[in-house]
Amino acid sequence: MEPRLSIITLGVKDLERSRKFYQDGMGLPTTKKPGDGIIFFQTSGCCLALYPYKKLAEDVSPKFDTPMAKFSGITIAHNVRTREEVDVIIAQAERSGAKIEKPAQDTFWGGYSGYFSDPDGYLWEIAWGAFDFNEDGSLIIT
Amino acid sequence: MEPRLSIITLGVKDLERSRKFYQDGMGLPTTKKPGDGIIFFQTSGCCLALYPYKKLAEDVSPKFDTPMAKFSGITIAHNVRTREEVDVIIAQAERSGAKIEKPAQDTFWGGYSGYFSDPDGYLWEIAWGAFDFNEDGSLIIT
Repeated sequence: MEPRLSIITLGVKDLERSRKFYQDGMGLPTTKKPGDGIIFFQTSGCCLALYPYKKLAEDVSPKFDTPMAKFSGITIAHNVRTREEVDVIIAQAERSGAKIEKPAQDTFWGGYSGYFSDPDGYLWEIAWGAFDFNEDGSLIIT
Repeated sequence: MEPRLSIITLGVKDLERSRKFYQDGMGLPTTKKPGDGIIFFQTSGCCLALYPYKKLAEDVSPKFDTPMAKFSGITIAHNVRTREEVDVIIAQAERSGAKIEKPAQDTFWGGYSGYFSDPDGYLWEIAWGAFDFNEDGSLIIT
C-alpha cells in the first residue's frame, strides 16, 4: 500500500448546503456540474468529497445506515504558515455558517489553533505551529 | 484558505493496537518514537494521524466525549492504479486484522472496489477506476 490517502468523503445530510459552505464560503475549488450526485474538491494531495450520508453508508453496507453521530471520531486539520491565518480562516468559517467549537488559542504543544464544525458537525482544526511545509503546502512529518 | 487538507486524525481506543495495524500490518511509515502520545504517518499530501479518542474529543470540547459511533460518517479512499491491487490490499488488511465490510466488486460507477474497517471501525475503501493519477500518486480531479 503506497503511503497516501486519495479521497476523504464526508457523508452529508444536504449536499447543496454543504456545497455552499465549502465552495462559496470557504472557497474550495470544485469540478461539480449541475446534477452531480457527489462533489469532489480540487484539494491538493488528498481530495475532499461530499456525498449524501445515507448513500455513503449504503455504499458500504446497509448496516451502517445509523443516525449521524454527534462526534465522528475524526478531525481534519488545515495547517497554516502564520498565526494570523488561523484567525482569518476561522472568521471566514463563522461567516460561512460554521459553528466555532473552540476559539483560536495557544495550544499545549506550543502552537495556536481553533476548531469549527461544518453544517453536519464535522470538525476542522485550523492550526499554526509545530510543522514546516513542503513546497506543495503539505507538512514535513519528521 | 488554500485548497488542501493537512492532517486527518482518527480518534482510537487503543493507540498501540492501531499503530500495529497501520504500521506493521499496512506498512505505513511513521516517525513514532516510544512514548509519543500521537502518531503521525508519512503519507504524502495529507498526513494520517492516530490519537486517543477521548483526548481528541477533549481537545475540541468536553461535549464531544461521547461513545464512539458505529459509523463515523466519513470514509477514506485509497485509490490504486490497477484492479489487481484492490484485491492485494484488501487481503493485506484482512491479514492485519481488519474486518472486510464489503468484498471487492464491480461498482455502479464503472470501477472496482471494496471496503474494510480498521480496529476502531473506521472505513477504508480501496478503489480502482474513474481517476487518473498525478506523478505523486494523488488523483487528477477534473
